[in-house]
Amino acid sequence: MKILVINSGSSSIKFQLFSMKENKIMAFGLIEQIGEPTGKIKMGSFHHEEPITKMLHIKNHEQGIEIISSFLIDEKIIKGLDELDGIGHRMVHGGTMRETEFLNDKIIKAIENFSSLAPLHNPPGLAGVKATMSKAPHVPQVAVFDTAFHQTMPQYAYMYALPYELYERLHIRRYGFHGTSHHFVATQAAKELKKPLQKCNFITLHLGNGASIAAIKNGKCVDTSMGLSPLEGLIMGTRSGDIDPAILFYLEREEGLDIKELDTLLNKKSGLKGICGTNDLREIKAKIKDGDEKAKLAFDMFCYRIKKYIGAYFAVLGRVDALVFTGGIGENAVSVRRKICGELKIFGIGINKKQSEKRGVLVHFESKKSAVKLLVVPTNEELAIAKQTQHLIQKTAKRS
Amino acid sequence: MKILVINSGSSSIKFQLFSMKENKIMAFGLIEQIGEPTGKIKMGSFHHEEPITKMLHIKNHEQGIEIISSFLIDEKIIKGLDELDGIGHRMVHGGTMRETEFLNDKIIKAIENFSSLAPLHNPPGLAGVKATMSKAPHVPQVAVFDTAFHQTMPQYAYMYALPYELYERLHIRRYGFHGTSHHFVATQAAKELKKPLQKCNFITLHLGNGASIAAIKNGKCVDTSMGLSPLEGLIMGTRSGDIDPAILFYLEREEGLDIKELDTLLNKKSGLKGICGTNDLREIKAKIKDGDEKAKLAFDMFCYRIKKYIGAYFAVLGRVDALVFTGGIGENAVSVRRKICGELKIFGIGINKKQSEKRGVLVHFESKKSAVKLLVVPTNEELAIAKQTQHLIQKTAKRS
Repeated sequence: MKILVINSGSSSIKFQLFSMKENKIMAFGLIEQIGEPTGKIKMGSFHHEEPITKMLHIKNHEQGIEIISSFLIDEKIIKGLDELDGIGHRMVHGGTMRETEFLNDKIIKAIENFSSLAPLHNPPGLAGVKATMSKAPHVPQVAVFDTAFHQTMPQYAYMYALPYELYERLHIRRYGFHGTSHHFVATQAAKELKKPLQKCNFITLHLGNGASIAAIKNGKCVDTSMGLSPLEGLIMGTRSGDIDPAILFYLEREEGLDIKELDTLLNKKSGLKGICGTNDLREIKAKIKDGDEKAKLAFDMFCYRIKKYIGAYFAVLGRVDALVFTGGIGENAVSVRRKICGELKIFGIGINKKQSEKRGVLVHFESKKSAVKLLVVPTNEELAIAKQTQHLIQKTAKRS
Repeated sequence: MKILVINSGSSSIKFQLFSMKENKIMAFGLIEQIGEPTGKIKMGSFHHEEPITKMLHIKNHEQGIEIISSFLIDEKIIKGLDELDGIGHRMVHGGTMRETEFLNDKIIKAIENFSSLAPLHNPPGLAGVKATMSKAPHVPQVAVFDTAFHQTMPQYAYMYALPYELYERLHIRRYGFHGTSHHFVATQAAKELKKPLQKCNFITLHLGNGASIAAIKNGKCVDTSMGLSPLEGLIMGTRSGDIDPAILFYLEREEGLDIKELDTLLNKKSGLKGICGTNDLREIKAKIKDGDEKAKLAFDMFCYRIKKYIGAYFAVLGRVDALVFTGGIGENAVSVRRKICGELKIFGIGINKKQSEKRGVLVHFESKKSAVKLLVVPTNEELAIAKQTQHLIQKTAKRS
């Protein structure tokens, strides 16, 4: 079974082609600067060690998909897109949709309806869908939503304390993001603990340039730090996470900033970068060694915010089987995991120092006496999308 | 020793006159609608059962103080304001000032400097100060800041993940409010536990129409839920508390709301009132009995937000001696205390049901096995201000 995974941005398409039997990547690539004078192409397959790169004007997403299709045929991986068993699309905002869905007119309409909530993400996602649909009209196409896993939150957790009619009329509520990743690592962690996911309580931490944390009770998400948008919650690379909303009113009064400038400020110029000038954690660590106080502050703030969310989710869950770290920082930053877990003795958490040094692999690093397991589980959102796509196709085939 | 406590708002002056020897209120009152065609006066003293009320045009704060002065003289409580031993002023925003301060030119200048951070509170506060100073130039006048108790927070707790220069240039950081109340109830709670405050770790919950929570380590505040302004944190009567700041960007895009309208929305039309139409907790309880789902939602959200903050502060503190409830809701709403504490078994918290029924009095309500004490401590901000004023005057007298 061959499944193509597409992650389509406003001027980019990222893809991976999986052979599902072996969970093997057969081809992968990234097309960037679509619509600009010169586009960038980087694609590779399991035939070669090095990916090929090209510069070329790429008119639109349709031409981007055409380029991917030609590459896969040239590489003799497929004879044409129609030969694929399925195409899985990463879709950022699925509103309240709880499941992976076949992309039919009804679902496309629903995604369009939620576009105002994710104006930077849903329209490009749909551009990718339309391009693959016109090239491979007979292949089942599936949308995997970043928001879906979080849609089991109870209402008291997903509502904001705003006028209720804003929820009814404008759908303002917590949706949560990184759901595919939280779900994937929770599933892997349950396997690792040899316990059915339905009986596991986890706190999953997806820490990368974007960062979020989820409280999972009996295998289902009951709360998460990102909200209506991916801006809320933890401190991220360039995003502020939680702030006093009155800061925006103050900045307007004092500096005359308008809403668009405030949006840019909070999404692009804040977070770790805003505090200390860089959002690269390795650079921050190097600066700390050189005695840079702002870098130290950024590191401490990042960990402190996470620690507070962990405490909050202990209160929410009532029992926690494991903390599960993933994402670029979650998998690799030993210092972050050690600082956070080292300060949570109150919850019976203890670290195995040697184990905690491992990076980028599935590993336990709790001490023998620790009341809570500590896991690193490398995430793989593309594989997760491919698997969910496969699952939906097979389930439907069985039924019919 | 006679101390007058003044709480001066934009069009109001609230006062209490204390005899410090007996901690006794000798007179009290509220003057409202200053500057409007008809002002409202309500004043009382220990001589009478019922306070007097009057309607009268009151030009400005100075005339308001004149009215208070005449009343106190007519009631034969004092011969003139000059006879007072001190006047304590409630001041909302003291910036980074950590202590109660004598109101001299330097301190007044500092308060003026922080007025842009609290434009609704500091200028009226200073209007009250100037009025009492002109009427009683020889009486020591003291400012007691709502922010002062929180100024021991470490930097990683008080900073936002925004560009660092906004902290340096515009002083954007967490300040915290209700400090006089948090400090007062922490002090009372330490006495009740027969332990020096310097050795106590508390989570203090000031729950009223405004609401905030503080993490107190070894008697000092290390974190609190209100931030740059009193908008952040818990769900309040009409304030949203924490939200995804991107909601503001969404509302501007979809509804064309400007910053001022957003400010009003979040501060005046949100919170409990926004969710279910009323910010009166007794009314909410009555509505829940009648099966009103939004009232139930408002109640559940209010308690859930508090529960998450308690969890976060357990993580921050590492050890907690007691949860201390105060404020109108904290002292009286049995259902709120029971719901919150009843869901925190993970922290070893257990309730004594009978004790938990008591309202508005100092009471313990933890079970015998509870690992954490549960206290209700009625707050008294006016008495706290009077005591701090007395303390500063006596300390200075000893030194000179």
